[in-house]
Amino acid sequence: MKAVVTVMLKPGVLDPQGKAIGQALHTLGFANVGEVRAGKVIELELAETDPTAAKAQAEEMARKLLANTVIEGFRVEVAG
Amino acid sequence: MKAVVTVMLKPGVLDPQGKAIGQALHTLGFANVGEVRAGKVIELELAETDPTAAKAQAEEMARKLLANTVIEGFRVEVAG
Repeated sequence: MKAVVTVMLKPGVLDPQGKAIGQALHTLGFANVGEVRAGKVIELELAETDPTAAKAQAEEMARKLLANTVIEGFRVEVAG
Repeated sequence: MKAVVTVMLKPGVLDPQGKAIGQALHTLGFANVGEVRAGKVIELELAETDPTAAKAQAEEMARKLLANTVIEGFRVEVAG
């Protein structure tokens, strides 16, 4: 069973990487780009068949390792 | 209109970051973790109201800047 953990900086936390991407896009001529936020995505293959249990495990992994919960938030999606 | 670009290494391309995350998860006691792949996610705020046009723009940005299409693939989702 596959779990996808998306980790983004919390709203209000300065995101220099996102800012740099936004400026680069403007330089390339993409004028209608507003705010840009950059984050991480981690795809996990889990030996677990129950979606609820898989989601709970992935959330624990996110809290313990994948995200810095002081400045980052995360969401978990589970797919077949 | 918000576009979310997810950039992942192509299948077959070695992913040392994902490997390192997988090993760290095993060390933490998450025994049922199989393959782990790490990628990037970029959330873009676009001054565009047509979803099809917004998606096309985000795809062009991914090709030109956000992804290295030699080794990375990307997908674009557009949300209200």
